[in-house]
Amino acid sequence: MTDLYQLTMMNGYFMSGTHETEAVFDLFFRENKSFNYCVAAGLLSAVDYIKNLRFTDSDIDYLKGLNIFGADFLDYLKSIRFTGDLYAVEEGEIVFASEPLLTVKAPVIEAQLLETALLNIVCHQTLIATKAARVVSAAGGAPVTEFGLRRAQGPDAGVYGARAAIIGGCTGTSNVLAGKLFGARVLGTHAHSWVMSFESELEAFEKFAEIYPDNCLLLVDTYDTLKSGVPNAIKVFNKLREKGRKPVGIRLDSGDLAYLSKKARIMLDEAGFNDAVIFASNDLDENLIASLALQGAKIDSYGVGTKLITSFDCPSLGGVYKMSAIKRGGKWTPCLKLSDTAAKITNPGFKTVHRVYAPDSGRAFADLIALRGEKLARPLVLTHEFERWKTATLERYDVRELPVKIFASGKSVYEFPSLAASAAKAKAESAKFWDEYKRLVNPHIYKVNISDGLYALKQELISSKKTPAGGRA
Amino acid sequence: MTDLYQLTMMNGYFMSGTHETEAVFDLFFRENKSFNYCVAAGLLSAVDYIKNLRFTDSDIDYLKGLNIFGADFLDYLKSIRFTGDLYAVEEGEIVFASEPLLTVKAPVIEAQLLETALLNIVCHQTLIATKAARVVSAAGGAPVTEFGLRRAQGPDAGVYGARAAIIGGCTGTSNVLAGKLFGARVLGTHAHSWVMSFESELEAFEKFAEIYPDNCLLLVDTYDTLKSGVPNAIKVFNKLREKGRKPVGIRLDSGDLAYLSKKARIMLDEAGFNDAVIFASNDLDENLIASLALQGAKIDSYGVGTKLITSFDCPSLGGVYKMSAIKRGGKWTPCLKLSDTAAKITNPGFKTVHRVYAPDSGRAFADLIALRGEKLARPLVLTHEFERWKTATLERYDVRELPVKIFASGKSVYEFPSLAASAAKAKAESAKFWDEYKRLVNPHIYKVNISDGLYALKQELISSKKTPAGGRA
Repeated sequence: MTDLYQLTMMNGYFMSGTHETEAVFDLFFRENKSFNYCVAAGLLSAVDYIKNLRFTDSDIDYLKGLNIFGADFLDYLKSIRFTGDLYAVEEGEIVFASEPLLTVKAPVIEAQLLETALLNIVCHQTLIATKAARVVSAAGGAPVTEFGLRRAQGPDAGVYGARAAIIGGCTGTSNVLAGKLFGARVLGTHAHSWVMSFESELEAFEKFAEIYPDNCLLLVDTYDTLKSGVPNAIKVFNKLREKGRKPVGIRLDSGDLAYLSKKARIMLDEAGFNDAVIFASNDLDENLIASLALQGAKIDSYGVGTKLITSFDCPSLGGVYKMSAIKRGGKWTPCLKLSDTAAKITNPGFKTVHRVYAPDSGRAFADLIALRGEKLARPLVLTHEFERWKTATLERYDVRELPVKIFASGKSVYEFPSLAASAAKAKAESAKFWDEYKRLVNPHIYKVNISDGLYALKQELISSKKTPAGGRA
Repeated sequence: MTDLYQLTMMNGYFMSGTHETEAVFDLFFRENKSFNYCVAAGLLSAVDYIKNLRFTDSDIDYLKGLNIFGADFLDYLKSIRFTGDLYAVEEGEIVFASEPLLTVKAPVIEAQLLETALLNIVCHQTLIATKAARVVSAAGGAPVTEFGLRRAQGPDAGVYGARAAIIGGCTGTSNVLAGKLFGARVLGTHAHSWVMSFESELEAFEKFAEIYPDNCLLLVDTYDTLKSGVPNAIKVFNKLREKGRKPVGIRLDSGDLAYLSKKARIMLDEAGFNDAVIFASNDLDENLIASLALQGAKIDSYGVGTKLITSFDCPSLGGVYKMSAIKRGGKWTPCLKLSDTAAKITNPGFKTVHRVYAPDSGRAFADLIALRGEKLARPLVLTHEFERWKTATLERYDVRELPVKIFASGKSVYEFPSLAASAAKAKAESAKFWDEYKRLVNPHIYKVNISDGLYALKQELISSKKTPAGGRA
């Protein structure tokens, strides 16, 4: 699962005899007006991919049939495995544009082979975890269930999206396979079809209550929510109460959720079902949920499908994977890609990311992308990369390096935490950021700077490339 | 891979003893302001899913651990297989909102189990085929290559999305796995990293030309497109020409594609490479491509990634799967879901779709959703479902029924055409629609009506449900 040009380049490196040249590649995403912060996810799948990376005989046969590749190269592919180092930000970390989520240091032929799959996996899952975090944050304390499998972009998008949504803060998912594979909590009761399969709504509710007396959440909008659905639910809840059972509540899946939830709340309360929850779904996203809260909707729990599982208003994170250094003639040479757009010039060198915390509040103050081995000064002066007059000085600070080592010389050296632990990490790390950075509208922009050493190196390389060796004067 | 509520309902049907009751479900998508027409895709994967549908021992163990389901039901699941009928619109057909893309007629327990996966698979692939068709149409005759694997929402989205894009009209894909699995044409040369791995751009180009003398398409924007990239490419092309080889051309992946392509065209032409193609990519979609054409950009071929593989401006088709009939007491009973929104009231009964063609032009005139077995009158009077005064009368017409039978009593009875044949079908069917229906801005709305028989049945059911049996007066 890769792009053909990875293979044509790999063949090129192989034919040039440079395929075992070590190189460093960074995987990161570009600035994105939809997301002011992201929640890292997808590392588990990425590691799984790397561990299982190999070409089967049928793969080799297929490639042979393309008549592009030499027999020696195809022979080489048969035994190719990842032998390099991988550094990555753990799942659940809060991350920002330009920060390497993954750094691959490996023979260039291997690093190139990983590009497409790593981008696909890590950016997709980070996108969905991020969207989930926004939705969950808008819901205040109300639990959010991920409901999107049917509307996802294929099976993987549904299943791995559900996992990412849990990391982002969803308390459960409707997706049974995600429950089985990842231990996510699964939730779900019935659809309109259950109601339609019976002669009457009341009969459908009665049957459901009989079978699930302790898990009786009734979908009340098949025909008429307030005139039929809620009254029928209350009839059934009364019978449950007579039997000493406690109904769970009702689900609204269409119509004006603010109005219907308020009316339904009054009806449930009047019938003495003050504890019965009102669960709402229907094309919700973080903005609609925030609006429902503002309107005083009486919703206790949300189900969010399409808009979350596809990250509807921004369905791709725009990740890139760029070479930042190569060992030429035994010597590491940093490199960059130029662009007319300053923000699209890549950061050269073998780098890491430091998160700097203000010592009194314990809150995140700024991130610093720095060369590996570079010492952070005390006091620390942070300078904006383009607006150089913008500086911030920290006399005292705490600092934490974000990336951890995942593979060392092709060997996996990282123990994955549980899904619940990754979700807890996202929650805890997010709490270290002031709300102003996380609000939905016009958020404060968190500082992500590059270190003095990286700045100097970048300027030097830009100057040297400005009149490239092969260009016209 | 399903939603938990399918299983809770299935258990409910099982416990009620109604699980073998036959039911009819339609899969369709609701009106969507992004797409005025769609290209059906995904049937191959859907059929594959149905054929392989089963619960493994580990699935059963997992479900047992949820403590929701009875032992008898879990035992029943072990041997559940699809035993029903499936009707579907073939891949490559032009389809519209409300038309059943799939109709399942099966024991309700089986039909319910299929819902989530069928929606996921068919709606995703139809979405991407549709987006591809729009992009390809904007490109005029220029070939469009699907380039999006890295930006797709997970592996399946990339691989099955690539297949759908071919059905929608892309001439190739960068996705090697899609090439292997589906026989799609694969394309790709090199990335910026190839250039960065050499001391100079010229050296990188020379090496590439040496290895691929007959497939030399050079990416010219790593440092400076017009001052470095194109001049270096021309140097290398000159050497190829001296050796009697013909260079393919250049690729532009950033900057102002209109300006750069015009300048590059002049430079290539001046050097005598009038046949060298200019291939352009960089976050393109149908609107940007249409705009490039208007500006007279000199682009011969397009690569389209993110915006196509995610259907960026509308990443979900909003498919639904609704029960339309159930055999109650041995008698088929049509059913519907009510809604305050007229367009969200479902169409009852066991239905089909007729495409009506005007006999002189051979062009599609209108689609008619009708009950199965209903005879179309001659002359045919088409009446708008809501604006009943809007009618159209056809004295003469040709008609074709869109859905074909795919499974009969659980047995697959459909032979899939090749991917190329499905793509050819999409092209041929699309040509039967006037351009006015397909234009990007303010398209003419194609008529999709319901038949007189279906209209009468729907009105009758709406009346009978208006004061539902269990509701308050």
